[in-house]
Amino acid sequence: MSTPSFERLFSPRAIAIIGASGDLTRISGQPIQALVNSGYKGPVHLVNPRYSELHGRKCYPNAAAIGEPVDLAVIAVPAAGVPAAVRDCGAAKIPFAIILTAGFRESGDEGRALEAELAKACRESGVRAIGPNCQGALSTDSRMWCVFGSVAEETGLARGPVSCAFQSGGFGYAVVNLAEVQGVGFRTVVSTGNETDITMPELLSAMLDDPGTELAFGYMEGTPEGRMLLDLGRKSLEMAKPVLIWKGAQTEIGTKAAASHTANLTGNYDLFRAAFRQSGLIETQDVEEIVDFAKVASQKRWPKGRSIGVLSISGGSGVVFADRAAKEGLTLPPFAPETFKALRAIIPSFGAADNPADTTAAVINQPELFTSTLDIVLADPGIDQLSLLLASLPGKGAYNCAVAIAAAAAKTDKPVQVVWSGRKAKSEEAWKVFTDNGIPFLPTPARGAKAAATLARFAEDRRRLVGRKAPAFAMPAGLQLPDGGVTLSEVESKGVLKAFGVGVTSEILVPVGADVAAAAKGLEGPFAVKIVSRDIAHKTEAGGVKLKVAAADLAKAASKVIANGRAYKPDASIDGVLVSEMASGLEALIGVVNDESFGPCVTFGLGGVLTEVLKDVTFRIAPFDIETARDMIGELRGAKLFDGYRGQPAADKEALASMLVEVSRMAAALGPRLKEMDINPVFVGPVGKGCRAADALVVLKDG
Amino acid sequence: MSTPSFERLFSPRAIAIIGASGDLTRISGQPIQALVNSGYKGPVHLVNPRYSELHGRKCYPNAAAIGEPVDLAVIAVPAAGVPAAVRDCGAAKIPFAIILTAGFRESGDEGRALEAELAKACRESGVRAIGPNCQGALSTDSRMWCVFGSVAEETGLARGPVSCAFQSGGFGYAVVNLAEVQGVGFRTVVSTGNETDITMPELLSAMLDDPGTELAFGYMEGTPEGRMLLDLGRKSLEMAKPVLIWKGAQTEIGTKAAASHTANLTGNYDLFRAAFRQSGLIETQDVEEIVDFAKVASQKRWPKGRSIGVLSISGGSGVVFADRAAKEGLTLPPFAPETFKALRAIIPSFGAADNPADTTAAVINQPELFTSTLDIVLADPGIDQLSLLLASLPGKGAYNCAVAIAAAAAKTDKPVQVVWSGRKAKSEEAWKVFTDNGIPFLPTPARGAKAAATLARFAEDRRRLVGRKAPAFAMPAGLQLPDGGVTLSEVESKGVLKAFGVGVTSEILVPVGADVAAAAKGLEGPFAVKIVSRDIAHKTEAGGVKLKVAAADLAKAASKVIANGRAYKPDASIDGVLVSEMASGLEALIGVVNDESFGPCVTFGLGGVLTEVLKDVTFRIAPFDIETARDMIGELRGAKLFDGYRGQPAADKEALASMLVEVSRMAAALGPRLKEMDINPVFVGPVGKGCRAADALVVLKDG
Repeated sequence: MSTPSFERLFSPRAIAIIGASGDLTRISGQPIQALVNSGYKGPVHLVNPRYSELHGRKCYPNAAAIGEPVDLAVIAVPAAGVPAAVRDCGAAKIPFAIILTAGFRESGDEGRALEAELAKACRESGVRAIGPNCQGALSTDSRMWCVFGSVAEETGLARGPVSCAFQSGGFGYAVVNLAEVQGVGFRTVVSTGNETDITMPELLSAMLDDPGTELAFGYMEGTPEGRMLLDLGRKSLEMAKPVLIWKGAQTEIGTKAAASHTANLTGNYDLFRAAFRQSGLIETQDVEEIVDFAKVASQKRWPKGRSIGVLSISGGSGVVFADRAAKEGLTLPPFAPETFKALRAIIPSFGAADNPADTTAAVINQPELFTSTLDIVLADPGIDQLSLLLASLPGKGAYNCAVAIAAAAAKTDKPVQVVWSGRKAKSEEAWKVFTDNGIPFLPTPARGAKAAATLARFAEDRRRLVGRKAPAFAMPAGLQLPDGGVTLSEVESKGVLKAFGVGVTSEILVPVGADVAAAAKGLEGPFAVKIVSRDIAHKTEAGGVKLKVAAADLAKAASKVIANGRAYKPDASIDGVLVSEMASGLEALIGVVNDESFGPCVTFGLGGVLTEVLKDVTFRIAPFDIETARDMIGELRGAKLFDGYRGQPAADKEALASMLVEVSRMAAALGPRLKEMDINPVFVGPVGKGCRAADALVVLKDG
Repeated sequence: MSTPSFERLFSPRAIAIIGASGDLTRISGQPIQALVNSGYKGPVHLVNPRYSELHGRKCYPNAAAIGEPVDLAVIAVPAAGVPAAVRDCGAAKIPFAIILTAGFRESGDEGRALEAELAKACRESGVRAIGPNCQGALSTDSRMWCVFGSVAEETGLARGPVSCAFQSGGFGYAVVNLAEVQGVGFRTVVSTGNETDITMPELLSAMLDDPGTELAFGYMEGTPEGRMLLDLGRKSLEMAKPVLIWKGAQTEIGTKAAASHTANLTGNYDLFRAAFRQSGLIETQDVEEIVDFAKVASQKRWPKGRSIGVLSISGGSGVVFADRAAKEGLTLPPFAPETFKALRAIIPSFGAADNPADTTAAVINQPELFTSTLDIVLADPGIDQLSLLLASLPGKGAYNCAVAIAAAAAKTDKPVQVVWSGRKAKSEEAWKVFTDNGIPFLPTPARGAKAAATLARFAEDRRRLVGRKAPAFAMPAGLQLPDGGVTLSEVESKGVLKAFGVGVTSEILVPVGADVAAAAKGLEGPFAVKIVSRDIAHKTEAGGVKLKVAAADLAKAASKVIANGRAYKPDASIDGVLVSEMASGLEALIGVVNDESFGPCVTFGLGGVLTEVLKDVTFRIAPFDIETARDMIGELRGAKLFDGYRGQPAADKEALASMLVEVSRMAAALGPRLKEMDINPVFVGPVGKGCRAADALVVLKDG
């Protein structure tokens, strides 16, 4: 994902405040004071035609009048004047703006028109803008502190490697507050507002380019640029800089709430989750998860697998850690025989020497023994990470453990985390050792296990996803689609599928009045006989389907479905009947939707109750490769059915995966022409027998 | 649940330390120092035959020698001497002991024998004992501080209404530390160790009896007294004192870890969850959940339903709260028209006046307006709770809000919570107002929503569960069971079911060689023909089942299944064939297990993939009433299938619920005689048509 450098936004050499107020408590005054308090070193130019001097400084009538290079403009003029202010910045060659002013699309039709005008002003002037309707941005590094509200006073915010972007400033800065209290340090924090120009995915991508950012976090309710999330995820994996996304508006009521406060396009939560999985973005749902993961990721050590070794001084901690670890997909394998033997020689008999091990207090009170214990476990090739559970161990004991842990961690490249709730006042020395040596410590075993699991998944995504390439796609030569928003008949729909290499049942279209039995001669019975008409999308409802028809009964069945179709819809134009071989196997369904945020996406589920009652369906953004298709098959809750159930043979998952890929290429190639597509059912035969679309419906869009 | 008063344990008038050490840093010395540090006011008598004086006090050779009334003995003698020490306490009329010593069942066969001896000593002496192998107990009220380890030094622990018990001392005291830092105050804290005498359910029940305890929490890995949890839950609901349970050892690896550290009977996690649901106990999985719920429950206001009104000053907070609330089962209904109208008149147009409402800063900056807003929402009869989302509002603004919220909360009995992450240093005044007025404030919207949902569920359980009565049960007159561990044949199994009023398919047993067609005359075909033999439990596997047999084919089918049975197991004793009417309807299965912790329990699920692939099964402890049975039906993930699926009629849920109740009464009546029972399938007919057990298998136990 190539993003233009936002260095001048995050680290501006000079700042202009457009619409600077004489009152430092107003929105248009607070950034002036904040830049003083933060210790920003560059010049801050005030612009307001009503003053020639303000707060003891020169005040300019417009940006161009400044006459010196400026990297960033803070725009806080009334809404109607914002587009002109942006153009003014463009004329003054100011590359970036942060627009604090509200009153755009969030406030009705007039605001929507104004926002369109603003978008045009950005485009034409070349000014890249954050906002409008945002709370501003800050950098703990450059001391750029162009914000209003309580965060304008928080210029002591802890420095660190985490950059974040929020579609809700008030909520976002509350998250920052809470995370800081728990030990997270920040680099750049941006409230993105309406994202008229710079969107969340582009901003997060630019944050990854910042050498001082090691982890990025975004709170987003929606984006029209859903597809850019895929590039963002890939970049995150390639750079080994994790990106966490908290998607707000997951539920109906959350979506309603989002609509009333930002008028953001909130989109389909299922597709966001699909994009996260597909690209390696990490979904998060609360502040503690962000804090904990930021801590364990700060080691920049990526576990080679999903296993973790656990050494505990409290039995219950080990149990709780193990429970949560297993639920989050980690494994606590038994230690290797030599590891176990070596530990058994150190740990007293009333302790436990296998994973999760209970060292007992006797071991931790002898630092050299404790160090050996750690070295032994870290040397075990079956162990990818290590967690030390120290309960609330205070004082000297905690200090000794900290020293031993720091020493052991320095000798390995495996992640080492500590779960510890020692009171800081009673354990200043241990806190210092952990902090100085970059050893993450988390407050509870459950949180430690969850963070370790997220770390393992990120590392695994780096191994699994980085090499994947979305397949090429193109319209097949000779494929003609009708113009306009047409619902194709089954025969036409299957024709489109076939053109893209998707297998369908063997079948023949027999025109009305033709000899059905003769036409079906090359096919093997029994047959499905179905009416073919663009005007009858719901064939079963119309009585237009007969299944398991014997060869001898074909003519009768054909007459019947045509008669039923005519009765159902007297003015339907009927092409004839489709005579198909009856397919068999496991029933699945594959669909395509064309989403406003993500474009063409593929849905997949199993037939019957699993999809209809349990909503056991999965999604991916099209196009995608066969490994992604295999992931889709494997992640269904009912995935076991593919391996044979109640004596059925195992199903041809590879053929199904190929079909998913072909459908994804088709969806990508048809692009905006495809409104939606359903293959229902697909019959997945036994291994080696392939799979076939038994029915299909393609709905085209205008254009 | 009537528990003997533990008042003298929690608030002893005098304490004896049996095995008092001369070294105050040893386990047998630390409680002596802790009782000094805590400011315990009663006499502390030291007992150790090796000294006549210790730490400047008189030291007694044994407990009886003290010659004054003592309520509590701390026993810290070597393991082998513990049973004698307990008997000694009994002789000295000391009613309670806390046994710190380890080396019992957790340390092998010898320890197991010693523990049996200890149990006998407790029983015979009448001494009620905590432990052994525990870290002790403390009371912030009575200043009883009989513990060792870091908590011995934590005598400044905050006072409050929360009592807790832990099966892991180290982990438990770490939880206490973390919870205290987040604002929770404690009453009594007990590490229960091996629970040889006093078990977790009994202890928690006694804690509820303590007038100073408003909420109890237990960390448990298992208990042989599972059934006592049902009484505990009922008592909790009746007294309106919530009980939270964290069940450790939920997973295979967690269970392995628990086995190695306490040798507790960890039991079946599914049954624990069933017991929690059945009785109103609240399951919890991490410290934050406990902290947050303790805060919202401290108001002692029980919402009348699941709705919540939300007023926010930050759009994103409202979205995130709404998302989580919906996922946790709360509703955010639209405000009543008059509420909306009144809010609309106050909230500016760029705010949102419907639920979740966005008041905007304009409203919160005018305290009288903000107060009206709160009063309006609290007066809405459709709103059961109120949550105020204040993001990280600092200083004066936070103070003004706090005053308005406290005033509004004082006028209502609805729960009022605040989500607020203001920094304490910048908001001392607001913290004080909230704290002084008992207004709970939680750090994140997601945590606030979860806590509010738990509060609503507890209140709902009080309404739903308290009135429920487990039905009476008895062995039916005339029911004869064979002795020993016998697997009954289908006919015998169904005979048992019928004796308990469980409906089975209409059918007749036809002995080998008899005229099958004649025997089946009163029945309606088609038929199921099944072999009947105690020796063939898996009839289908043996070829012993023919389905959909027409009347004319009965004789042939009967001969065939008998021949197949003989071929399958030549020495099987064959009673004949069972000719049954074919039942139809939705397929379900009902089972009984007899669990070591919980005794007889009923399992229930739907037939097919839902149970076999997705493990969509539910459990309850037997016996139970019809409302509980309805809960079971409703909580299956596939529950929608009962309401008709793909054109099927709605199923007779009431008949099914009745059958579940009858099965539960049967399980309770058979008690220890029943090893397990399966009805598979049950056919649930359309509404009004009832349901029938089509196959059944009863396995008896010895005794």
